[in-house]
Amino acid sequence: MTDTTPLSLHPDRLFPADPETRAIARELYNSVKDLPIVSPHGHTDPSWFASDEPFANPAALFIIPDHYVFRMLYSQGVPLEELGVPRIDGGWTQTDPRKIWHRFAENFHLLRGTPSRMWLDHAFHAILGITERLCPANADRIYDQIDAKLKTDEFRPRALFERFGIELLATTEDPLDDLRHHRAIAASGWKGRVVTAFRPDNVTDPEHPRFREALPELGRITGEDVTTWDGYLAALRNRRRYFIEHGGCTSTDHGHPTAHTENLPQEEAAALFGKIVRGEGDANDAERFRGQMLTEMARMSLDDGLVMQIHPGALRSQNPAVTNVFGEAKGDDWPSRTEYVNALKPLLNAYGNERNLTIILFTLDESNYAREIAPLAGHYPALRIGPAWWFHDSPEGMRRFREQVTETGGFYNTVGFNDDTRAFLSIPSRHDMSRRVDCSFLARLVAEHRLEKDEAFAVAQDLAYNLVRQAYRL
Amino acid sequence: MTDTTPLSLHPDRLFPADPETRAIARELYNSVKDLPIVSPHGHTDPSWFASDEPFANPAALFIIPDHYVFRMLYSQGVPLEELGVPRIDGGWTQTDPRKIWHRFAENFHLLRGTPSRMWLDHAFHAILGITERLCPANADRIYDQIDAKLKTDEFRPRALFERFGIELLATTEDPLDDLRHHRAIAASGWKGRVVTAFRPDNVTDPEHPRFREALPELGRITGEDVTTWDGYLAALRNRRRYFIEHGGCTSTDHGHPTAHTENLPQEEAAALFGKIVRGEGDANDAERFRGQMLTEMARMSLDDGLVMQIHPGALRSQNPAVTNVFGEAKGDDWPSRTEYVNALKPLLNAYGNERNLTIILFTLDESNYAREIAPLAGHYPALRIGPAWWFHDSPEGMRRFREQVTETGGFYNTVGFNDDTRAFLSIPSRHDMSRRVDCSFLARLVAEHRLEKDEAFAVAQDLAYNLVRQAYRL
Amino acid sequence: MTDTTPLSLHPDRLFPADPETRAIARELYNSVKDLPIVSPHGHTDPSWFASDEPFANPAALFIIPDHYVFRMLYSQGVPLEELGVPRIDGGWTQTDPRKIWHRFAENFHLLRGTPSRMWLDHAFHAILGITERLCPANADRIYDQIDAKLKTDEFRPRALFERFGIELLATTEDPLDDLRHHRAIAASGWKGRVVTAFRPDNVTDPEHPRFREALPELGRITGEDVTTWDGYLAALRNRRRYFIEHGGCTSTDHGHPTAHTENLPQEEAAALFGKIVRGEGDANDAERFRGQMLTEMARMSLDDGLVMQIHPGALRSQNPAVTNVFGEAKGDDWPSRTEYVNALKPLLNAYGNERNLTIILFTLDESNYAREIAPLAGHYPALRIGPAWWFHDSPEGMRRFREQVTETGGFYNTVGFNDDTRAFLSIPSRHDMSRRVDCSFLARLVAEHRLEKDEAFAVAQDLAYNLVRQAYRL
Repeated sequence: MTDTTPLSLHPDRLFPADPETRAIARELYNSVKDLPIVSPHGHTDPSWFASDEPFANPAALFIIPDHYVFRMLYSQGVPLEELGVPRIDGGWTQTDPRKIWHRFAENFHLLRGTPSRMWLDHAFHAILGITERLCPANADRIYDQIDAKLKTDEFRPRALFERFGIELLATTEDPLDDLRHHRAIAASGWKGRVVTAFRPDNVTDPEHPRFREALPELGRITGEDVTTWDGYLAALRNRRRYFIEHGGCTSTDHGHPTAHTENLPQEEAAALFGKIVRGEGDANDAERFRGQMLTEMARMSLDDGLVMQIHPGALRSQNPAVTNVFGEAKGDDWPSRTEYVNALKPLLNAYGNERNLTIILFTLDESNYAREIAPLAGHYPALRIGPAWWFHDSPEGMRRFREQVTETGGFYNTVGFNDDTRAFLSIPSRHDMSRRVDCSFLARLVAEHRLEKDEAFAVAQDLAYNLVRQAYRL
Repeated sequence: MTDTTPLSLHPDRLFPADPETRAIARELYNSVKDLPIVSPHGHTDPSWFASDEPFANPAALFIIPDHYVFRMLYSQGVPLEELGVPRIDGGWTQTDPRKIWHRFAENFHLLRGTPSRMWLDHAFHAILGITERLCPANADRIYDQIDAKLKTDEFRPRALFERFGIELLATTEDPLDDLRHHRAIAASGWKGRVVTAFRPDNVTDPEHPRFREALPELGRITGEDVTTWDGYLAALRNRRRYFIEHGGCTSTDHGHPTAHTENLPQEEAAALFGKIVRGEGDANDAERFRGQMLTEMARMSLDDGLVMQIHPGALRSQNPAVTNVFGEAKGDDWPSRTEYVNALKPLLNAYGNERNLTIILFTLDESNYAREIAPLAGHYPALRIGPAWWFHDSPEGMRRFREQVTETGGFYNTVGFNDDTRAFLSIPSRHDMSRRVDCSFLARLVAEHRLEKDEAFAVAQDLAYNLVRQAYRL
Repeated sequence: MTDTTPLSLHPDRLFPADPETRAIARELYNSVKDLPIVSPHGHTDPSWFASDEPFANPAALFIIPDHYVFRMLYSQGVPLEELGVPRIDGGWTQTDPRKIWHRFAENFHLLRGTPSRMWLDHAFHAILGITERLCPANADRIYDQIDAKLKTDEFRPRALFERFGIELLATTEDPLDDLRHHRAIAASGWKGRVVTAFRPDNVTDPEHPRFREALPELGRITGEDVTTWDGYLAALRNRRRYFIEHGGCTSTDHGHPTAHTENLPQEEAAALFGKIVRGEGDANDAERFRGQMLTEMARMSLDDGLVMQIHPGALRSQNPAVTNVFGEAKGDDWPSRTEYVNALKPLLNAYGNERNLTIILFTLDESNYAREIAPLAGHYPALRIGPAWWFHDSPEGMRRFREQVTETGGFYNTVGFNDDTRAFLSIPSRHDMSRRVDCSFLARLVAEHRLEKDEAFAVAQDLAYNLVRQAYRL
């Protein structure tokens, strides 16, 4: 271990440096650190838990699927092929995981100051027992250590799930999914609770790349005539019911380019749908249709109780040179300026005052936290504020979230933490980071005598555990 | 008092935790904490001071009129009727103040981390002598304590005004107001200085809900022909004069949906007015007319010396389910994205360089602080920067204001604090909060050796007292 | 020296107050404080270094050319004439530098809390040896002290350049500049490295106030037919080559009102150019043409290696009452809301994936740091993030930059510091401020155990010295 640097995790990491504030943060954190993890929104693969096969190798676990990691290396000139990202055309990409690992180790410094670095160090040390910081000199040794661990039973998905203290993990599936993995998990007798979330974008967004195939398929599997508005709605209701019954689903999720909503008279909605089915709709029609479908989903939620999540404002697959070669979600997705107060008005006029409906709003445009999201959620009974999302799911991002949301929206219109990840081994670290950042924020309020300590302990429990269960009806 | 928690106000509340910075903040604060309160903009009811009647009961004082409080409870499912908010149609609403108080006490935790909680605790403890934190178990006892106090002479409006150390309090009236309460106060011989501010939105904004009735009424009380442009302007000049002479008015206030201004040739302005008077104007005409009226108001200010306040960007009464039942300003108002640099250009081209004109700009869109407001006010002699407004009139909001405004706009283009409140008992707490947050900001500059201590003392006096008097010409 | 206050610079200035964090900041800072200054972008006058004449007097050095200073005084009612700003029409302006200095001293308090105040104090004390804080009582004495220093050889431009430890200083010239001063410097045998940057706005922006004269002049000096698209492009290539060969140029700079880009087919671009040359283009054509020229410049950069800087979103010379009398860049310039992700798409689709191209993006709209700039630069190999710009080149501004950029963009997609100044004596202070703020940010990461200390030392070196040299190819 000469030439290398020890790796450890400081027990006070992420707490403010001021000793008094840090001591309070530590106390608060100690009261919530061992609470179960509730992960109500994310993108892990349910087949992991259905099959319980070991993870293939360190590169397949940490690099190839993690767009946070490979985007940063790509931005500094490392070709995605050298990081093993598969090409759509089957063309050459690095398949030797050890070589991929070498490239990663050479560029590990690029992640300094990013949350990915903290998530990785946590996974390496706390989960995998690595005691050196990754660098080119020890890349092979660390690869071997991780690889050996991954071959043991304790590092299979189900064992990790249990070790991580996960009480519930939600995956995300589209309406065409048959939920075979969720059903297999249920049938297996394993106690781990892995539920699905209903994400209908491929059948509600006319501009979704798979809308044209997905719509008829929706008709096929539901037996409904999805060329008619009524049949289409019935098919969606049918799948929601299926997701509830066969996937433990408690929520829907809507990833739209904007927060635009509509509440058209049904005849108009039917006419718009007809236009779209006939392929005659333009971009404006697509926007209106997506907006109408948010209101339709809210209406269905009033019947079946599913909690709505709205994730607007991401521009996806924006770099054709990457998307055309490597496919979607390859790090070329980013936020855009997003408007809420006018965009949501039709939906909120219709259902914002419902006490039995929960709509969780997310944003990638932080200028909305204090300006739009907190004021809206501090008024409408149906609205809740989703946690800091995606790029903002980071120490500074989560701090800004609390600083900008709390005073107008309060703590009780927020819904705990979402890890939103496909990187399974980052889940404990992400939840731990969230608890540490929230406890640091609370500690500052206590140290500044803006919140009494006994109340801070109560809020810490709520932010780490209670609110997510209430909001997502778990 | 078993089962309850003591209530006290920590002398260091709102100061940074770092001991050195806190010590400086404390020193600075001690030098300004006893300065008189100058409240140049707000929404208290002048009849309180004219009649000096006692406040009715705790619910009528703290809950029913405070939209910060009832909006948060409403957002978590408490019906406004249960909080005693009166219905327009006279339908049922809770009229037993004690029952309203119970609902409030049950939900008091919802205000954790909000400025309302700090304002309430301050009023309860520092003003009303309550020594327990409000909770369901002590709700009745605290209700009785407050109710008893309110029946005593020391808790009548004028006695409180004097006890609070208020040097001047501005209310806000529209041009049709006859200022009877201000005249009654003046005639009463009481020394308290309660002045009015001239807010003409109901006769300058064609989309104001009362524009159609207000305009002819303006003609009636001024004897001017308000169907002509010249008569209309004369009527406004007349009422400004009346407000100055009978209400001690030194400022106007303009609450527009945007910061749009126009500087049309007079013939064009007259034609636009004609269109609006005839009811032929559309939304675009309304926007242009409001914009033109800001420039007309600036022109009149050059004559009569009234300071202009522009409060743009609030969307008001946005939830029909609330507005239609309970009326305006019931917590369904929020910010929207607001643009200044282009919107203000016509007005600034005309009068931005005037040294005898003061235009105070406010924003609910904090992204403008550093990007637009501070750069504009750091150039134009006529412009000043209003304090953190509404939702941002909070510890974090006021901190962001100073952090984002000071470096480009300086301290001397700001104008002290506005409490902007209709909650009379929150006034001492709000000014105290502002002084604490400003002194904390200054203390950080001193601790980081970015400002000398002697200068920080001078600036603290300016921010707490001198600048507001200068800017509002008091 | 009675009645005056001592002036000194605290060694810990700008470091966080928390003792542990401060100690780390100090250590980090000590490791970079003596590194050479690399100034890759700014607006100093190359004739200073060509002629090496002494600076005329204190007012000519510190007030008359510094729009940060005179804008703040103007905003508080001081006429620009009294600050010696020359009028275009040759009308009266104060020419007695001592009287200008008096006005400055009387209003020196207006700069409290601004970076200008820190830059000035640094220049006064660390460079000029002044030991009293400027005030009306000592204004004459300090004037005399500075004036005497300026007459000595140690305060001539080249001596200061060397004393400041400047390794390289870039000025900014337009394509019509013959670079005589750069050539004179080279011919003089002086070792100081003063290079140019190629800023073609006057020949690429049809709305530039000098476009109409500049375009034919470009044709004249290059011998190309700039009435044709091909001739025009050839002329630009010619001047880029000239700037590289005769001015040591390594970068271009583009100051556009927006970040709009286009990538038109060449025939369409040629047609658009024709329309503009014939004076038939409208505002939309101008916007499209500027956008097209960014893509053309990127294409040329792929050939000749010049690094591109894009500075979008400044609205310039906005106050006619100032511009018409005093000319451009007189403090009436400010940011506007700016959009990047859609605006840059044509350019990024064409060249964003190039590893041999560097495009440095700046913004005056801080809401873009975390929302658009960091996500883009964290993906595209060609993109880098320029430092906090203009109004945001301040302690709070630079802190927000690191806090909002680092987690998504990383440190290695940033490019060190730009002083961007025409105030030569502020250069050491500005670089010192940047190093102190960056080290403070790093110290917080270390104190919060988000970055290991050895890595923080490496990053501090990179931010202060290595990244700027790499990014600007120096």
